[in-house]
Amino acid sequence: MSQSRWPVNLALVPLNLRTGNVSPRRIAILGSTGSIGRQSLKVASSQAGLSVCALGAGSNWQLLAEQAHEFRPDVVAIAEEKDSSRLKAALPGGIELLCGPEAMTELVLGSRPDMLLTGLVGSAGLKPTLAAIECGSSLAIANKETLVMAGAIIMPLARRKNLAVLPVDSEHSAIFQCLSAGKADEVRRVVITASGGALREHDEEQADRATVADALAHPTWRMGRKITIDSSTLVNKALEVVEAHWLFGLPPEKIEVVLHAESIVHSFVEFCDGSVIAQMSRPDMALPIAYALCWPARANLPAEPLDLPAVGRLTFKKPAGRFARAIQLGYQAIRAGGLAGAVLNSANEAAVQAFLDGKISFGRIVPMVEGILNKTPPCGETTLEAVLQADAWARQQVERTIADKGR
Amino acid sequence: MSQSRWPVNLALVPLNLRTGNVSPRRIAILGSTGSIGRQSLKVASSQAGLSVCALGAGSNWQLLAEQAHEFRPDVVAIAEEKDSSRLKAALPGGIELLCGPEAMTELVLGSRPDMLLTGLVGSAGLKPTLAAIECGSSLAIANKETLVMAGAIIMPLARRKNLAVLPVDSEHSAIFQCLSAGKADEVRRVVITASGGALREHDEEQADRATVADALAHPTWRMGRKITIDSSTLVNKALEVVEAHWLFGLPPEKIEVVLHAESIVHSFVEFCDGSVIAQMSRPDMALPIAYALCWPARANLPAEPLDLPAVGRLTFKKPAGRFARAIQLGYQAIRAGGLAGAVLNSANEAAVQAFLDGKISFGRIVPMVEGILNKTPPCGETTLEAVLQADAWARQQVERTIADKGR
Repeated sequence: MSQSRWPVNLALVPLNLRTGNVSPRRIAILGSTGSIGRQSLKVASSQAGLSVCALGAGSNWQLLAEQAHEFRPDVVAIAEEKDSSRLKAALPGGIELLCGPEAMTELVLGSRPDMLLTGLVGSAGLKPTLAAIECGSSLAIANKETLVMAGAIIMPLARRKNLAVLPVDSEHSAIFQCLSAGKADEVRRVVITASGGALREHDEEQADRATVADALAHPTWRMGRKITIDSSTLVNKALEVVEAHWLFGLPPEKIEVVLHAESIVHSFVEFCDGSVIAQMSRPDMALPIAYALCWPARANLPAEPLDLPAVGRLTFKKPAGRFARAIQLGYQAIRAGGLAGAVLNSANEAAVQAFLDGKISFGRIVPMVEGILNKTPPCGETTLEAVLQADAWARQQVERTIADKGR
Repeated sequence: MSQSRWPVNLALVPLNLRTGNVSPRRIAILGSTGSIGRQSLKVASSQAGLSVCALGAGSNWQLLAEQAHEFRPDVVAIAEEKDSSRLKAALPGGIELLCGPEAMTELVLGSRPDMLLTGLVGSAGLKPTLAAIECGSSLAIANKETLVMAGAIIMPLARRKNLAVLPVDSEHSAIFQCLSAGKADEVRRVVITASGGALREHDEEQADRATVADALAHPTWRMGRKITIDSSTLVNKALEVVEAHWLFGLPPEKIEVVLHAESIVHSFVEFCDGSVIAQMSRPDMALPIAYALCWPARANLPAEPLDLPAVGRLTFKKPAGRFARAIQLGYQAIRAGGLAGAVLNSANEAAVQAFLDGKISFGRIVPMVEGILNKTPPCGETTLEAVLQADAWARQQVERTIADKGR
């Protein structure tokens, strides 16, 4: 692994990003009405030099209109078309409105932001992300699914255009921060921490029968529904292993996962001299969001400081049992290459949705995803078209499995 | 605090240091037969690009001769004159020998190393350190007493000559490593961790009556006698607070101390966005030594990796009682300025020696140091002469106090 393989090589980053708080930075936020989007807007409004030029949302037109009044972007987009006339009427004058399934991509191409923050859930972030690279925007990626599906497309493209690809996931932001204490060829391994999710105190049998409410009761983080279920199944960590592989150019044997119940140590990096650099904070997404939006400067956040004596103790455990089985899917996807990442992600998205819809039990999510991952169709070059086909194929497989075997 | 106030500003560091492992680096080691010195030689022998050009020791002539055979320096020095002829006979041919109280300083001036590692105990490191700056050597400081006494002289001199002043103390090495994750004006505070020392489980009364053997039984680190007693009294942390003040240009209100029994987290830094960057490893001085000797590259050390799940838990506590009283001496010395650092250090050195010699009880060390610190004589400019006078004065005060009050 040579240093130039790091996605964020300071020397290669456009000046408007490198100077951080000096020149103003125009930011587009996709998924602005979701958990990450709302927190990103809060960060953007608090930091000098950041301006919001474009906002995109799925269906919450009322909140999108409110955000447009507060942040006055040039353009907004909504995926859901049925409320577009009500949104149009609610928007301040002079703001362009885009609607429909391609609206996010059009929003990016039209606004050409300095940085795109993708807070969309699941595979919906893929096309707008590629559009952003196309028009020279750097990326702040909260939408890990995009990288899991198409890291093989996104990373080389971004590198070719000298664009920064910055993590927003707290774990990857932690790794990224820790990496500054050494050089790429000095990294021995990165270790992603996992809270263990809502069902961490359940035994395997209890977990298998967990209700949606059980699986949504995350102990340390308040997040959207899909990622909260992923935390409970631990598939979130499988996806994060793949994400780390792409973001930091690391082979699977240099990526580990450790259980850390307190969610204070967000991840850590071990260097070739045995030194371990860890990033910690109280669990608050404002920090990794601000780190990406202001990078390479640090934002001034009024957050309550981390009081380690008040926390008292930090604990660490090796993942075993169902935890290890779920995490293993990430390594399997990296090693298989090709479309395996796309299949892992999309089978999981569909299976989680089926669980949330009451169609399958919690305990079936991981085995179903694993079964479909094992059948990943071979492919030649990993193209956007092939990824989208794999996405559709994996979703069909989930439907078919449920139709065959029922709940 | 502006960025240029950091002692180690990459842009200012001579090329032979900046390129790390590329060009060979000639190293002089003072205190080569002590704990730090022996470990430094082990590191030097394992890393390509490091060569040992000079070795200085206090009195262990046999070991110094062995080291000279192994490392073939140009010159060796021994402070104790009585064994010099035996040492001379034991040395390989062609190695110059210096003896006597000024030998360390002459060794530095004669060998003009790229980097001087000072592993001497106490105030003995002061003059050779100033000599190293004089002849353009960067500094790897394991001898914190030198900075505590004369930081006001050393740091401006080193800055004027663009020399790196690198910490070897594990806590300060940790802070230095963590600081690379942000800029100087983004630092909110640094937090030095403390194991609590050999007597951490004793109540105050038990600690007061501790024997030399009790106070030397350090739970996590194997070190020299003086620093091990300093760990037990917690005066070591007072000295480290002053050391951090000088090394990193930090005001006392940005320096904190927290008890961390496991000695895994060696210290941490909080930045203005609330992000905390911590450095961890198993307790092993090879790491901070190698970090200083190879900086800005990292050494390849075969050390057993830190296995956090095997460690299980890390604990943190606010210092109170006798711990807080001892640590407070460091803040007092910084705020008083002038000769207070020199008095703190030398009164402590003499009081610790008196304890090791059985002349005073453990419980008298800190109150005696505090009493003498409170009487620090005023001074105009902090000159080397004034510092040496304060050193002598503080030692006399310890003798006088013992003579007046007995054990």
